[in-house]
Amino acid sequence: MATIKDVAHLAKVSVATVSRVINNANNVRDNTRDTVKKAMEKLNYYPDANARALSQQNSNTIGIIVADVSDPFFGAMVSTVEKVASRTGHFLLIGNGYHNEQQEYNAITQLIEHRCSSLVVHAKMLSDSDLKKLMQQVPGMVLINRIVKGFEKRCIALDDRYGSYLAVKHLIQHGHTRIGYLCSNHNISDSSDRLQGYKDALLEHGIDVNENLIAIGLPNEIGGEQAMMSLLERNCHITAIACYNDSMAAGAMSVLYDNDIKIPNDISIIGFDDLVLSHYLHPKLTTIRYPLQTMAEQAAELALKLAKGESIPTNLINVYIPTLTKRYSVTFINS
Amino acid sequence: MATIKDVAHLAKVSVATVSRVINNANNVRDNTRDTVKKAMEKLNYYPDANARALSQQNSNTIGIIVADVSDPFFGAMVSTVEKVASRTGHFLLIGNGYHNEQQEYNAITQLIEHRCSSLVVHAKMLSDSDLKKLMQQVPGMVLINRIVKGFEKRCIALDDRYGSYLAVKHLIQHGHTRIGYLCSNHNISDSSDRLQGYKDALLEHGIDVNENLIAIGLPNEIGGEQAMMSLLERNCHITAIACYNDSMAAGAMSVLYDNDIKIPNDISIIGFDDLVLSHYLHPKLTTIRYPLQTMAEQAAELALKLAKGESIPTNLINVYIPTLTKRYSVTFINS
Repeated sequence: MATIKDVAHLAKVSVATVSRVINNANNVRDNTRDTVKKAMEKLNYYPDANARALSQQNSNTIGIIVADVSDPFFGAMVSTVEKVASRTGHFLLIGNGYHNEQQEYNAITQLIEHRCSSLVVHAKMLSDSDLKKLMQQVPGMVLINRIVKGFEKRCIALDDRYGSYLAVKHLIQHGHTRIGYLCSNHNISDSSDRLQGYKDALLEHGIDVNENLIAIGLPNEIGGEQAMMSLLERNCHITAIACYNDSMAAGAMSVLYDNDIKIPNDISIIGFDDLVLSHYLHPKLTTIRYPLQTMAEQAAELALKLAKGESIPTNLINVYIPTLTKRYSVTFINS
Repeated sequence: MATIKDVAHLAKVSVATVSRVINNANNVRDNTRDTVKKAMEKLNYYPDANARALSQQNSNTIGIIVADVSDPFFGAMVSTVEKVASRTGHFLLIGNGYHNEQQEYNAITQLIEHRCSSLVVHAKMLSDSDLKKLMQQVPGMVLINRIVKGFEKRCIALDDRYGSYLAVKHLIQHGHTRIGYLCSNHNISDSSDRLQGYKDALLEHGIDVNENLIAIGLPNEIGGEQAMMSLLERNCHITAIACYNDSMAAGAMSVLYDNDIKIPNDISIIGFDDLVLSHYLHPKLTTIRYPLQTMAEQAAELALKLAKGESIPTNLINVYIPTLTKRYSVTFINS
């Protein structure tokens, strides 16, 4: 591959001049700029982004850490941050934490080694103290879907507990009292907060929490199938189910169909997240909307601002409130 | 942020020694290595990956270009390449081409500027000649889902035409002759090849191609809904539908439900790709399996090999053959 020296040689200018053309400096004559650009083209010369990053101690990249990019929830998050990156002339570097403390840590430090000065981090397994240490070192690091004390203004999160409360209240308002819950087995706040929201709604309406109506599984379609099977086996006469997320709801619905249980006439079901999927299940899934695009965009813009040393906007929303999206999977109890 | 000089100063060694520790050189005494590592930790020093990339004229990254990372098809592709990257000690840089020639070109050149020596490229809008030029410059560049003449051994693709032929033949074998087709409006070979496969199967079985039974839309759920609406409006008494992909099938199914048309008793439907989604539609979607994970893994491993100057494995499969996955959305014609 051609080097900057080759370009300088062909254009009959100094390396410094080529460098000024690459960096769009304005102290270069127009015809010199043309000659250099033609030489670059002729030699198929690509300026080295690593050299630029090294000299500026900053890369033109935004780093993002997600649990797993193949999960549609994280796919939507990555895509949103990529749009911000693209709009602001940045490149996106992605790391996967795979719901594992050490992998989350490695992914973040690798992005730091690449001198990503703006970082959007979804890390649920790392301890608060590890995250605090990293956030102290990297001013442009922003957390999404987590609040760490002392750094609240650099965190963008959702009120999961309230969202789940809203979902279960919607079922209760349709006359349901025997309400099952499909819970995520990930040991993170999302799981415990959403479970707590389920309990909050029951207790507020004078319904006892029955642990027998709660089944646990992976927070994906297969986990939803397994948890639903487990609930059915317990023969506990539920008339409605609230789910940790839409993917678990999709899995549960497929088990209900296999068992000839009608949705919503025999069992009502409600999801969480409002993924694209929820529109194409049958019936279309009533769910809780997670304003993920808005939140991810906010997080990316905040990370860019902080990396440039700008202050945090005073009107920034740190905790978003989810909303109910009514479709056709919930109906009044068949009494 | 601490520099390599700060580390050398604290550890009372030369910068070159610190550099040798960072690069795991073996000409460093164990106790010197310990002292340097402790100093790095104390100062929160992160070695500069850009400096390493610059000095080696190679970054420890694999680059991938996809059309849009938020599309579940590309999400699965990215995730597979990420797993290869992670297993081989590489980092993943992602660029989006957004089905646009200029954006595809920009994304590839940006990855080259970052000195990604291994590139897995999904680019359908760039011309063959532009791709050839880039592949000549970057030995570790591999194409996925496209064959470019002269570079066939560095291309991993699927026989789209055969896959679609297989789908439509399956419908014909169930007695269907009035078969609609939901076609992608993207002007790429995937669209025309899959449409051609539909026509191949009809013609082979003595069924005339009726352009009135072909509806075009975006290759996603919304495009599927619109194309299905358009087919229904034409009132052309179809008994089966083949779809460009599973997402269009999901959209079509939602329109059929809204119109109280039973699947598969009134209309049989078949997808393409075998996304996770296809398992959770109701009924579960019969579809054509795209061995995407296998193909993406092959492409990533080939890119790594080529970047290291190794030769192309003789047993490499360049064109994959799709297979039929039977589920419950196709049945015999209701005569």
